[in-house]
Amino acid sequence: MESYKSFDPTEHGLSSNFRCKVPQEELLKLLESLGHGDHREGSIGIGLDSCVLPTRHDGISIVQTTDFFYPLVNDPYYQGKIAAANVLSDLYAMGVTECDNMLMLLGISSQMTLQERRISTKLVMEGFRDACLQAGTSVNGGQTVLNPWYIIGGVASSVCSRDEYIMPENAKVGDVLVLTKPLGTQIAVNAHQWLEEPSQWEKIEQVISKEDVIKAYLTAMFSMARLNRNGAKLMHKYGAHAATDVTGFGILGHANNLVQNQKESVSFIIKSLPIIAKMAEVAKACKINFKLLEGFSAETSGGLFICLPPEQAAKYCEEIQQLDKHQAWIIGEVIAGNHKATISPDVQIIEVDYY
Amino acid sequence: MESYKSFDPTEHGLSSNFRCKVPQEELLKLLESLGHGDHREGSIGIGLDSCVLPTRHDGISIVQTTDFFYPLVNDPYYQGKIAAANVLSDLYAMGVTECDNMLMLLGISSQMTLQERRISTKLVMEGFRDACLQAGTSVNGGQTVLNPWYIIGGVASSVCSRDEYIMPENAKVGDVLVLTKPLGTQIAVNAHQWLEEPSQWEKIEQVISKEDVIKAYLTAMFSMARLNRNGAKLMHKYGAHAATDVTGFGILGHANNLVQNQKESVSFIIKSLPIIAKMAEVAKACKINFKLLEGFSAETSGGLFICLPPEQAAKYCEEIQQLDKHQAWIIGEVIAGNHKATISPDVQIIEVDYY
Repeated sequence: MESYKSFDPTEHGLSSNFRCKVPQEELLKLLESLGHGDHREGSIGIGLDSCVLPTRHDGISIVQTTDFFYPLVNDPYYQGKIAAANVLSDLYAMGVTECDNMLMLLGISSQMTLQERRISTKLVMEGFRDACLQAGTSVNGGQTVLNPWYIIGGVASSVCSRDEYIMPENAKVGDVLVLTKPLGTQIAVNAHQWLEEPSQWEKIEQVISKEDVIKAYLTAMFSMARLNRNGAKLMHKYGAHAATDVTGFGILGHANNLVQNQKESVSFIIKSLPIIAKMAEVAKACKINFKLLEGFSAETSGGLFICLPPEQAAKYCEEIQQLDKHQAWIIGEVIAGNHKATISPDVQIIEVDYY
Repeated sequence: MESYKSFDPTEHGLSSNFRCKVPQEELLKLLESLGHGDHREGSIGIGLDSCVLPTRHDGISIVQTTDFFYPLVNDPYYQGKIAAANVLSDLYAMGVTECDNMLMLLGISSQMTLQERRISTKLVMEGFRDACLQAGTSVNGGQTVLNPWYIIGGVASSVCSRDEYIMPENAKVGDVLVLTKPLGTQIAVNAHQWLEEPSQWEKIEQVISKEDVIKAYLTAMFSMARLNRNGAKLMHKYGAHAATDVTGFGILGHANNLVQNQKESVSFIIKSLPIIAKMAEVAKACKINFKLLEGFSAETSGGLFICLPPEQAAKYCEEIQQLDKHQAWIIGEVIAGNHKATISPDVQIIEVDYY
């Protein structure tokens, strides 16, 4: 367990049950109805992590992404770090390691007292800024509104030459799939809330102790706050063929988006699921269908999901462990196929120790 | 009056009392708690409408801005256009005429029915997209969440060489001040709401007819939806020394930000205020202190406020009238001074005809 002093509950006000993204189906329907996107050569749009757009300057593209969402954790400082790590992750998934600018997007809860707003906003902004500094970038610009619900997010932009990003489209039969963070963050965050909800807690207390719920929650928090930047750097070093990051649509949702973008006729088969310890049991016991084992449980600021040449994958995992002090896993294979991602029927659950 | 068929919710399958708006009462309460009449904060880059950041590529900067806010008008399509025009305006204020990418930020109201959400979101997105196409750019990327209140906004980015933007810092004594859109949009939007609020309507019915309220509202709507792009192009042609755009802080708020950013010891004096017809009287009669004549009434997607050499200003105004079919005005002067913007005690109100 990393050394961490819990956020003081007297500064509460960032209740974490707000998360509610628009269902992917509905969003895609809306976007399609617009003939969404751009027809300029070399631009890519929906389904992928960042847009890549040629500029009026020869050989220079802009790679850009935005994300904003509702708080997940009680600690506003960590919430800020998670928000920044989550936005930056979409650049990292494209192999972009340098962010030229970050904008911060904030909706400050109108339901808080003035005091609560001031304290929590200061902490959120500090966490966001610190994660950006760690990423070698800084926050210049943004927008703040009052809103019934707290909102935190950002916009990450990188002005890149062609060799600075990796188009996520060159997976080859025989590649292996690597994942750089464990799954189960949503379950961990929910289980932590259930400590204060007796009717839910009763359902899971047979499979997990309160102490382990707290450990799982903090593991999720640290994992979400960790940058995928080293993972992105190593994608270049070890010749990654394609990558995405695992967020709201779950590992299989993102794997499907990625496999549909591949030039060659490939499919992905996922043979193991690294999950924060005991979260698979909690997911089963809680009677809420998170679809964790089906691969659809939402993650926030999840790991990179990378197609790597088989001879490089072990070295990739070894080096990222050295740099980040956390494990990455070979979780599956790229096979010949018709652009489908599936989880193997005999999928192995890897219980990931608490950080 | 431009040809415009009023937004009819029933034509889109919505009930006739559908409003794509934040409950006004609730919003006003929030604004009071903030201590000023605006729900927006400016970007972190003090004095600049957009941030300008050098990139890792020689001579290439990224110019970027974001804004998002709550709906102002009932017509979702126009609301989308206004949001895009408002975001782009911050680039235009820097003389940047080419936007390389737009991201769209949406919060879809969780208080709407599924049907209302789909229809209104489709229209908002179409308006946003059409304004972007008109601006020669397109929407690639963004984020959508469900939120109690409707939110619409975007992120505009331009990758620029040094000659493509005009740093707003070179105003000279003897320059004149030009404004490209009339003031009074906030009053017009409010007056239009008061048509349905008898207690407020009673206060203004002595000074304006219902018909003229509707005309003023539509004039405001068309004005907010109009791009400042031609204004930006002409800033280069006529050698503008500095500019900003008029939004949430009102004309004097933005004039003050701009004058404080000037290298030379100058002040601005505003001698006339072009205001949508009858809005000055409405502002006075309504007993709500919008501070319109004091220069602090919030505008959305307002005009460019430009410091131009005196021999160029008339030509600038003439050409923008030809291109945009709407007037611009010489409203004041740059004088020697200590970085203050003031409105002349004998300021002249220019009543601007309904579009």
